[in-house]
Amino acid sequence: MSGLSEDDLIARFFAPLAGPAGLGLIDDAACLTPPPGHELVLTTDMLIAGVHFFADDPPDMIAKKALRVNLSDLAAKGAEPLGFLLSLALPQDWTETWLAGFATALGEDAKGYACALLGGDTVKSPGALSLSITAIGAVPQGHMVPRPGVADGDLLYVSGTIGDAGLGLRLARAQEEDRIWIADLEAPAQAHLRLRYQLPQPRLGLNLAVRHYAHAAMDISDGFAGDLGKMLRLTGMSAEIFIADVPLSDAARQALVRDPALIIPILSGGDDYEILCAIAPAQAAAFERAAQAVGVTVTPVGRARRGTTVPIFRSAQGPVLLPLLSYSHF
Amino acid sequence: MSGLSEDDLIARFFAPLAGPAGLGLIDDAACLTPPPGHELVLTTDMLIAGVHFFADDPPDMIAKKALRVNLSDLAAKGAEPLGFLLSLALPQDWTETWLAGFATALGEDAKGYACALLGGDTVKSPGALSLSITAIGAVPQGHMVPRPGVADGDLLYVSGTIGDAGLGLRLARAQEEDRIWIADLEAPAQAHLRLRYQLPQPRLGLNLAVRHYAHAAMDISDGFAGDLGKMLRLTGMSAEIFIADVPLSDAARQALVRDPALIIPILSGGDDYEILCAIAPAQAAAFERAAQAVGVTVTPVGRARRGTTVPIFRSAQGPVLLPLLSYSHF
Repeated sequence: MSGLSEDDLIARFFAPLAGPAGLGLIDDAACLTPPPGHELVLTTDMLIAGVHFFADDPPDMIAKKALRVNLSDLAAKGAEPLGFLLSLALPQDWTETWLAGFATALGEDAKGYACALLGGDTVKSPGALSLSITAIGAVPQGHMVPRPGVADGDLLYVSGTIGDAGLGLRLARAQEEDRIWIADLEAPAQAHLRLRYQLPQPRLGLNLAVRHYAHAAMDISDGFAGDLGKMLRLTGMSAEIFIADVPLSDAARQALVRDPALIIPILSGGDDYEILCAIAPAQAAAFERAAQAVGVTVTPVGRARRGTTVPIFRSAQGPVLLPLLSYSHF
Repeated sequence: MSGLSEDDLIARFFAPLAGPAGLGLIDDAACLTPPPGHELVLTTDMLIAGVHFFADDPPDMIAKKALRVNLSDLAAKGAEPLGFLLSLALPQDWTETWLAGFATALGEDAKGYACALLGGDTVKSPGALSLSITAIGAVPQGHMVPRPGVADGDLLYVSGTIGDAGLGLRLARAQEEDRIWIADLEAPAQAHLRLRYQLPQPRLGLNLAVRHYAHAAMDISDGFAGDLGKMLRLTGMSAEIFIADVPLSDAARQALVRDPALIIPILSGGDDYEILCAIAPAQAAAFERAAQAVGVTVTPVGRARRGTTVPIFRSAQGPVLLPLLSYSHF
């Protein structure tokens, strides 16, 4: 118990983050004027301590991750952020210092990504910290990039690098099976992988390129292999992916040299928050130029082909079997 | 563990509830075309087992309460529902039967209130069941009814009856201090009060009347006395309320006869989900007629006057002191 009422808490920590549509967070609801000629893109993600982050992660990382996983969805749909709502369940032992760190970081990202706080709800949790963010974006009418839309022959592109966050999570858990490669990995590489798990980089810079050139797109959040399979299946497509074509960070490559079996969590671990999209070959050069112009690396990893099988991953030694294609919660 | 993947679970339980903007819940986001000339009203509420409902409440009650508390906010703002997003954290011991009951009831309300599911997120909770709903409504541009807006001399109206849910919660808790009045209260009155706690009735039927006639409105969720104080304070108003004017259900009256001290939880307990609004005296008759036309009782409980004190509640015996004006979470 802090002695603060819910209203005090909102006024002190969250009202400074509110955009004009948030009405100073003193009303029952936000009031948002949608940009004319646009449709709204809405997404929500819930994060719980012990499931989606570690309870002792720094509050700034938790705040930013919660917002960024939603912004990643908006980016993949080609949308421009308009704002977000936050539901926050604070554990019994919350402190004002923790909440100040959380709110300050959330405000930094809200400003940095031009996505102001519109409203929310703050409650006390009998258990772990949990939070749910709903983000709202806009695209010109009829231009949201769908997940179902991959056409036969499309080139499949991913942004950034794949697998870092999955390795970062293994690093943080430090289980016996990962002892050796972790011990061998240099500190900067470890730091890179950890940060990729803790702090996603939503590819909002890429939203216009995706909107202009992609037939289909999604953000990779539950593992590259599984998410690729999900996207392809929706339009009866399959693909053969040469693992050598999948973009990896130097840190992931270093880990992979130490333990080649890590290719499995790299390809199927979660939390990448990169964009996967399908581009007609005739548009590929233009898409790559548009991505380059905003400083985001995009890499073609294969080609969609009509088919009903899950994507096949091939190394120089032959097909690689991925026991679990995608992280599943249930 | 059910053997269901998250996608299976969504396809089976939630996709049937999705409106067209929900895209069958197979995409990363919903795509909503806002009605031209309207602005969007956005609200979010989080509910946690053991805090906002009892963990063993029936799943249909939990589902409906979670949606309805949000619809209540839309109603108070004069908005028409467009849809909602659901974040659901299921406890480890969830069952398919429970989830089927939850989803069916949610679907009934989504249909009944013309507020389709647009999207969501389903995760596993290490602790209690929790859920967060974000509801989206629309009002014609410039016509959202604000919370700050009470003018000097406005009549203060409430819908329905006050205090039932607060008594219903006391009934459910059945603590020692409540033993006598509970034992004396007839079964139908008990059932009425319990249901008012478990299953709010959002006053959506009143949204047009509120939009046309109210200077200010809010839904009463944290206790009538406290919420009234919050609304008045925003424009430098106060009020004197004669307790005899506050509309009570027969069940609440019966309880009050048995224990007059219950007037305090009646006036300051939470979960009423009635609308509180401020109407210019010249509009009062028209407002009452509009409410009557949609079958919702509205009752004037007092008049706003410029002032800085909290609202004064008077009985025939003099002022009644409310120790805690409003339920506070922190």
